[in-house]
Amino acid sequence: MAESPKSKSQGPGSKAVVLRRAALTSQLSTFNYFLGLDLGGTSIKAVAVTASGAKLRQRSVPFVDRDMEWAKKIRALVRAWRRELGEPAGIGLSAPGLAAKDARSIGVMPGRLLGLERLDWTDYLDSPRPIPVLNDAHAALLGEVWRGAARGLRDVMLFTLGTGVGGAAMVDGHLLRGAIGRAGHLGHVTVDWNGPRDDFNTAGSLEHFMGNKYIRERTAGRFASTHELVAAAERGDAEAKVIWERSVRALGCSIGSLINVLDPAAVIIGGGIARAGAALFGPLERAVRHHEWQAGGHQAKILRAELGDYAGAYGSAANALGFNPAKG
Amino acid sequence: MAESPKSKSQGPGSKAVVLRRAALTSQLSTFNYFLGLDLGGTSIKAVAVTASGAKLRQRSVPFVDRDMEWAKKIRALVRAWRRELGEPAGIGLSAPGLAAKDARSIGVMPGRLLGLERLDWTDYLDSPRPIPVLNDAHAALLGEVWRGAARGLRDVMLFTLGTGVGGAAMVDGHLLRGAIGRAGHLGHVTVDWNGPRDDFNTAGSLEHFMGNKYIRERTAGRFASTHELVAAAERGDAEAKVIWERSVRALGCSIGSLINVLDPAAVIIGGGIARAGAALFGPLERAVRHHEWQAGGHQAKILRAELGDYAGAYGSAANALGFNPAKG
Repeated sequence: MAESPKSKSQGPGSKAVVLRRAALTSQLSTFNYFLGLDLGGTSIKAVAVTASGAKLRQRSVPFVDRDMEWAKKIRALVRAWRRELGEPAGIGLSAPGLAAKDARSIGVMPGRLLGLERLDWTDYLDSPRPIPVLNDAHAALLGEVWRGAARGLRDVMLFTLGTGVGGAAMVDGHLLRGAIGRAGHLGHVTVDWNGPRDDFNTAGSLEHFMGNKYIRERTAGRFASTHELVAAAERGDAEAKVIWERSVRALGCSIGSLINVLDPAAVIIGGGIARAGAALFGPLERAVRHHEWQAGGHQAKILRAELGDYAGAYGSAANALGFNPAKG
Repeated sequence: MAESPKSKSQGPGSKAVVLRRAALTSQLSTFNYFLGLDLGGTSIKAVAVTASGAKLRQRSVPFVDRDMEWAKKIRALVRAWRRELGEPAGIGLSAPGLAAKDARSIGVMPGRLLGLERLDWTDYLDSPRPIPVLNDAHAALLGEVWRGAARGLRDVMLFTLGTGVGGAAMVDGHLLRGAIGRAGHLGHVTVDWNGPRDDFNTAGSLEHFMGNKYIRERTAGRFASTHELVAAAERGDAEAKVIWERSVRALGCSIGSLINVLDPAAVIIGGGIARAGAALFGPLERAVRHHEWQAGGHQAKILRAELGDYAGAYGSAANALGFNPAKG
């Protein structure tokens, strides 16, 4: 996919020559890198990587969500890297919301990041090649399959446990997008149909039982974060133990259901709550085995995500370079 | 994909010539048909169709599940159609169980249809071309997308409501198979995590609340079939109404969850219980809208399956001719 940038003007003072000179003075392999961008809620993550995934640069840029500051900061970062590294062989971008069918923008993202909906990133970043846009969770999964915990796999579910519970799924090597780009919202499945409906209309959802945004509601105001809850449970607080065990059971039960729907070889767990480590993965392993249909003796692996906050940026780069496990 | 059959022996009495003569005397378009076979629990459904899906023949052959009677009857039927119609341009087959990765057999099918596991259908039916094998629900969905209720769609969920609750899913035009071929077991998702675990280890599953196999358990022995239950509910029996409403709510709630996971444009409902008609589809429509995340105003269509008992046979033929909505 890598190719040299072309310019109509080739004179010694032209933009192309200046760019090329800047690149040649760098010690990096020029014109042969991919730029992955991931727009989060409070920061932008960016990586510059080779086609084989070797990291050349990595940056996190915080922003305040007003006046499209995030967009301007992305543009500034891309300009700076173009100057330093030359024109990338491809740029990919991910962001919250549902990616449009033509993959040039986020089509639906109500409530925050005003200006993101239908912003055409190929135009906005003056890219000579189309910039494919992915939903952030879709990108994180693609990143984990390309260079993270799910390397070499074709059937994978990802859960990101944080404020909410996000997710993404790949089946037979295909990253699931769906009719309007919402496939893989794995946090919005019912475990208790008598429970309250969440922001997505889902009754007693996994997100309700596991997401940080519902922790006060779930704990009668006792805990402000899952981190606090887990710490209390580890100290032996009986009430905290019961609540945390219920959270883990909700996740195990949901994974059990979705194994029947998506048939993964591995389930990747990421997000801030995954930092609970053994306090999560120990009981989760047991809960999954309890609810899992082990057809022909098969057990889905439960793995911790490896790329952390940069999974989406890696996935965006993978998407830009056309990484596709279905063809592998 | 259609091509003429070839034979090393071309003499006037050769098998090829006899076959060809038989075919020429038929009024049907010869050498240009596909044979779709679907092995069920008590009968074999077969269709001979053109590449555009026009039906040339259709047959249902009952069998008793002993001594591989089903296999012998399939072989006899294929022989008869080869004699009458000539060699098909392709044969496809579907059956219960999980299809093997190489698609030449059913890899896992414990408990019944003894002899089905790892039976290589290409060899068994002496086919000059590989016979692709699909799980029966996968085939039914492919059939409905090719020639039934989901024509022209790429994002579809299918539920078959009968003894159990089966299903299949297509996302972005890809029929989901998964790591061991079990993707799309949509009946085995939890709606009530406090409910009993079903045969697949799933707590309080959709199948538990909707499948005929659990109806005695669900109704304290009062009803022997969903048909009886729905008839009683329609006569105004208060207890039957409550039980049936709960079944429909379980289905609506599961569809709501799985819309977030698979993002279908349409949900197809088939199987014997779908014959309940308005008694099912009226309340189901309301239950789905109640639980559905209508992102950007999107509503998934709820449609009744169109191909009935022959969906799997059509899907097997579609699979043999290489029908693939992802490429469309």
